[in-house]
Amino acid sequence: MRIAIPLFDGFTALDAVGPYEVLSRLPGAEVVFLAAQAGPKSTDTRMLTLLASSTLVALPDPEVLVVPGGPGTRALLENRPLLDWLRSAHERSTWTTSVCTGSLLLAAAGLLRGRRATSHWLELETLRRFGAEPVAQRVVRDGKLLTAAGVSAGIDMGLQLAALIAGEQVAMAIQLAIEYDPQPPFDSGSPRSAPAEVSASVRAAAASRAVSSRRPQSPTD
Amino acid sequence: MRIAIPLFDGFTALDAVGPYEVLSRLPGAEVVFLAAQAGPKSTDTRMLTLLASSTLVALPDPEVLVVPGGPGTRALLENRPLLDWLRSAHERSTWTTSVCTGSLLLAAAGLLRGRRATSHWLELETLRRFGAEPVAQRVVRDGKLLTAAGVSAGIDMGLQLAALIAGEQVAMAIQLAIEYDPQPPFDSGSPRSAPAEVSASVRAAAASRAVSSRRPQSPTD
Repeated sequence: MRIAIPLFDGFTALDAVGPYEVLSRLPGAEVVFLAAQAGPKSTDTRMLTLLASSTLVALPDPEVLVVPGGPGTRALLENRPLLDWLRSAHERSTWTTSVCTGSLLLAAAGLLRGRRATSHWLELETLRRFGAEPVAQRVVRDGKLLTAAGVSAGIDMGLQLAALIAGEQVAMAIQLAIEYDPQPPFDSGSPRSAPAEVSASVRAAAASRAVSSRRPQSPTD
Repeated sequence: MRIAIPLFDGFTALDAVGPYEVLSRLPGAEVVFLAAQAGPKSTDTRMLTLLASSTLVALPDPEVLVVPGGPGTRALLENRPLLDWLRSAHERSTWTTSVCTGSLLLAAAGLLRGRRATSHWLELETLRRFGAEPVAQRVVRDGKLLTAAGVSAGIDMGLQLAALIAGEQVAMAIQLAIEYDPQPPFDSGSPRSAPAEVSASVRAAAASRAVSSRRPQSPTD
């Protein structure tokens, strides 16, 4: 079972590595990191580089597709080769999935028209522009499409997908192997639970980045 | 503030990327992935490669040290250059931290003697061999030492450390930015909560790997 994770400059590392860490442990799974051109791909912070070992054209028909997000997606919403590949891969895939703003790439490829889907909470309404129905939920399933909320939600999505592919016992063993017993020190992981001033600071930082178009600054994006 | 994350062949990707994703968003933070020799480092699954952009000798005095784990740690428990670097970096660091079996490297360097520390639940007792006091807890703090449990625990550790460094408001903003509002589909992330047969299967897989000494097989390690 080939699991394809397309990379691009400006992706968010955990969007890709969360699901990878879960799905690579499925029996018989082969996770392939690929890109328009193979080679080093820099994350959004420019402090970390992952290698794409293969090209999109070399793997037209993965069984599972996992599209990460990140500020780098903005430059790709009209990228013909990537969107064509996503459309064609989705036609043949068993599961098509995304994490964070990876769903905007699926949406830009026309794959979420009339579908329920999610994304990073800051970009949820952007899905509507592409004809999708945004759902503020950690993981949203619509047929063979699974979309996850922001960044860390890819771990939860990966475990749900592992259960769909290999059954709950295997998914639970993977969860135990990666000791996924989360204990966040604060209840600040969602705009529904975070203190109002914290949400406001994250919104303001995102807005200022959008205006300046500079590369992402800490602490957000 | 320089945050050093040493990489090595056979590390577990999420051990490194979880804390990176949190700490790289701290104002003024520079996360550096480094290794004995700079260049590509393959993860435990051999399906993913991260780049170490610098060498250990080039960065002797990072303010923060984050040591990831993984099956590759076993080959390093007597690796003189790495253990010497860890000892020397720890002398000057503000915070010395680990994720998963990264704590075994700190322990092998002699840094956990008489200290409370944690590790992956399967390797907790191994800490005792090096004179540490194992604690079955998600994140353990002893002075400037922070150790985290298995793989995914590095995200929780990263957020605790972010709060210690920059205050709770900043840590909460980072948690919201990465939408860390975990909703695992099963209650199977700890040996205390997982069904007995799931724990037994993960233990058996780990034992069979230890005997065969082959590279890790799914679903665990």
